[in-house]
Amino acid sequence: MTITVRHLAEWVRGEVLGDGDLPISNARTLAEAQPGDITFVEHDKHLTAWHGSRASAAIVPLSVPVNGRPIIRVADPLMAFARVVQQLRGRPQEQAPDISPASHVHPKAKLAPGVRVGPFAVVGEHTEIGANTTIHAGVVVGRYCKLGEDVTLHPHTVLYDECVLGNRVVIHANSVIGADGFGYRVQNGRHVKVPQLGWVELEDDVEVGACTTIDRGTFGPTRVGAGTKIDNLVMIGHNCTIGKHNILCSQVGIAGSTSTGDYVIMAGQVGVADHLTIGDGVTIMAKSGVSGNVASGARVLGMPARPHKEQVRILMTMDKLPEIRKDVTRIKKHLGLEET
Amino acid sequence: MTITVRHLAEWVRGEVLGDGDLPISNARTLAEAQPGDITFVEHDKHLTAWHGSRASAAIVPLSVPVNGRPIIRVADPLMAFARVVQQLRGRPQEQAPDISPASHVHPKAKLAPGVRVGPFAVVGEHTEIGANTTIHAGVVVGRYCKLGEDVTLHPHTVLYDECVLGNRVVIHANSVIGADGFGYRVQNGRHVKVPQLGWVELEDDVEVGACTTIDRGTFGPTRVGAGTKIDNLVMIGHNCTIGKHNILCSQVGIAGSTSTGDYVIMAGQVGVADHLTIGDGVTIMAKSGVSGNVASGARVLGMPARPHKEQVRILMTMDKLPEIRKDVTRIKKHLGLEET
Amino acid sequence: MTITVRHLAEWVRGEVLGDGDLPISNARTLAEAQPGDITFVEHDKHLTAWHGSRASAAIVPLSVPVNGRPIIRVADPLMAFARVVQQLRGRPQEQAPDISPASHVHPKAKLAPGVRVGPFAVVGEHTEIGANTTIHAGVVVGRYCKLGEDVTLHPHTVLYDECVLGNRVVIHANSVIGADGFGYRVQNGRHVKVPQLGWVELEDDVEVGACTTIDRGTFGPTRVGAGTKIDNLVMIGHNCTIGKHNILCSQVGIAGSTSTGDYVIMAGQVGVADHLTIGDGVTIMAKSGVSGNVASGARVLGMPARPHKEQVRILMTMDKLPEIRKDVTRIKKHLGLEET
Repeated sequence: MTITVRHLAEWVRGEVLGDGDLPISNARTLAEAQPGDITFVEHDKHLTAWHGSRASAAIVPLSVPVNGRPIIRVADPLMAFARVVQQLRGRPQEQAPDISPASHVHPKAKLAPGVRVGPFAVVGEHTEIGANTTIHAGVVVGRYCKLGEDVTLHPHTVLYDECVLGNRVVIHANSVIGADGFGYRVQNGRHVKVPQLGWVELEDDVEVGACTTIDRGTFGPTRVGAGTKIDNLVMIGHNCTIGKHNILCSQVGIAGSTSTGDYVIMAGQVGVADHLTIGDGVTIMAKSGVSGNVASGARVLGMPARPHKEQVRILMTMDKLPEIRKDVTRIKKHLGLEET
Repeated sequence: MTITVRHLAEWVRGEVLGDGDLPISNARTLAEAQPGDITFVEHDKHLTAWHGSRASAAIVPLSVPVNGRPIIRVADPLMAFARVVQQLRGRPQEQAPDISPASHVHPKAKLAPGVRVGPFAVVGEHTEIGANTTIHAGVVVGRYCKLGEDVTLHPHTVLYDECVLGNRVVIHANSVIGADGFGYRVQNGRHVKVPQLGWVELEDDVEVGACTTIDRGTFGPTRVGAGTKIDNLVMIGHNCTIGKHNILCSQVGIAGSTSTGDYVIMAGQVGVADHLTIGDGVTIMAKSGVSGNVASGARVLGMPARPHKEQVRILMTMDKLPEIRKDVTRIKKHLGLEET
Repeated sequence: MTITVRHLAEWVRGEVLGDGDLPISNARTLAEAQPGDITFVEHDKHLTAWHGSRASAAIVPLSVPVNGRPIIRVADPLMAFARVVQQLRGRPQEQAPDISPASHVHPKAKLAPGVRVGPFAVVGEHTEIGANTTIHAGVVVGRYCKLGEDVTLHPHTVLYDECVLGNRVVIHANSVIGADGFGYRVQNGRHVKVPQLGWVELEDDVEVGACTTIDRGTFGPTRVGAGTKIDNLVMIGHNCTIGKHNILCSQVGIAGSTSTGDYVIMAGQVGVADHLTIGDGVTIMAKSGVSGNVASGARVLGMPARPHKEQVRILMTMDKLPEIRKDVTRIKKHLGLEET
């Protein structure tokens, strides 16, 4: 498929500068683009990369000047480029049957108009699914669940009974929502299970990555606030209350009954202990281990996590540790204090 | 559904103090309870929370005095409350067909009476399944497996060939038991796979969380002892022998051929290296990395893990590190030792 | 099943020394072998274990002398033992139907000769699958994917649309290839998703463990080089380029757009930040956190990761930290410097 720069500009409602008749056959990033490709420049700081790129044309911010090759100026080059990629690849959208005959939807489930259910998917008794929600192949939705509109459950997602999902929630493949919390009591030398009778609530616009687990509460909900985005292989323990617009990166683990405020960011492999309160706007840096409450706005690092500046000072001193030790030995010798 | 305190007390065989005729419509925890709810008090230390709670009634330990609102005294308030929650929600148990016609059970598999198999589940050739075991939707059980009685496999659990499960084993959704161990040898610059011909044995009363993986042994078993409880996203490597009544919290990883004693506890995100011996009753605190054997009864922390007290002393000194560095510089200056 | 040592030697083309007529009924490792068993000795360093073993016979390297019990000398005892184990267990290979009638293969998918598809597996529109590839039960392969020859996808593997797999790729159960990268931009206080329009390429002989996730690129590929082996519960972020013959152990996490050279080893629970370059032959030791580029050939440890020798020196000094602190206090007292 080949198309002119001018035609691409029409798709993205941009302004062409330079040769609008140039034919374009592919769309690739600055580093990967070849002659014949269009690329994109997200910020002015990528201008040098654009000058060095092999691309024949670029979608650029309004501020970028002409450099001999045709450009398309737009307010948001990233999103414009995404539209171009989708158009150039030209793949038709799947026209799946609304409800696959190879699925297993309980007669007492209630499906709103526009719901799609893929092959080998299961929808349990008394579950309600909102309009235009897509249940992909092999998904298992338990009983008494309530899903909003425009929800997407990717293949093999499992929702245990009684999960509640808001509108536009997206869950990626092989994630598990609502498995039992990890609660036991020791009785006569055995770990006896505490019944896990609660549920999980994911509010509007929550996105959950692949192979992530969010356990049900013991008696009430485990809750994830609106707009929070969760990466792959994350664990959220039972009875947690995660705030709105959090970013939880891959392999984060949050133990039971901990709550977070809004706009919290946890980088990769962070661990947070149970029954803690993490304030609004907190940033927890990668691999940190949090064992106490964190006040709103704090930025913490390390295991155990300390305020970021403090931890950096400690880490910098650690580099000098062998030298400090030598110095102390030398001083003791100088002072005749070795023997004590 | 509304029911009197007296009626609830009959369900849990407790003693009513106060107004037994009070109607109750819901059961929620101390923090969440509203007027009209019953709640529960697990220990005397929660008495203040009970006094401040909006709940209309409570299930309490035998020691708790009346405070104006009706109480139900029982020996085990948590378990009594769980029964009340289940009754009040009044959800009927699933009446699934014994063997779903949409499942795929090999004609040479042997299923004892009372076995349930959900839709789109697969049971392989020569596999034997004990009485009253439940195989949920989409589970795949390989060939030559042997499952005990009252086992529960939640949706999409995968058992590779030859896995052996005791009685009352529970495995949560999307966990994988018996995948190949991670064993390779370098030959001519390539990693050549060591055949993984062993199997996995989970003894009676083992519970495994969601998205957890337990690899098969190379030639023999990977074993998990009776009563051990394993959380979500845990990795147990090939040829490991995990003892009885261990608690392995979320995101723990145990490398190949390591053994643990009985009553070992590993907190979240702990890593244990391969070919180690962890003694009975060891506690490994959160995020620790264990690279050597640990003697029975020890409590270790850190990366690398050290005895807990020792590590705490080191961590406390680390806070003073920048100060110590300054002191040493000052002493050197005082003594005229800077230049060396 | 019982068989003589001589007969076993014929299977593995080895030389018998001692009583070739001895009957053997089982094959177990040195530590587990019982009388009547054959075992194997991988290196001379295991000779003491062999002398102390209860096994009746052993497969040994060419260098091992007779010690009274029959031995079979071969060049590669481990692989020879593996063949013996497989023969003695005598389990027939599965004779699955080529394409299960209970699978769901799109009419526009192209399957080469010898492809097997298990029950409840799904193969999407326009996907091409090479000769002798095995798609196990419940696997979901999206649209426009391209799989090579002799590929094995274990149960419940999910490939999103457009994934490209080379020959002999193996993916273990419940792994997810090609889910959306974790990319958002903040707009008006909300995290707005960056479209993830790329794909995943796994080159020849890549093996991926269970419950591992490899996200698709934003516009181009996330790539894993030929011969690289990936363990369970690993996360590879979007736009990463992993080199050839890497070993990525369990629970490793690599953030977006990072590249690794060839022959890189990451031990368990390592985390690597985004947009980094890890050189050829680098070893990253267990639980390390890498926040900067690493030069070829380096061996790093710690959080943050430092050169291994340097980090070990720091860790050894840390053990002395409380003592150093006491020394500094003593010196200050000695010099009358406490008050400053």
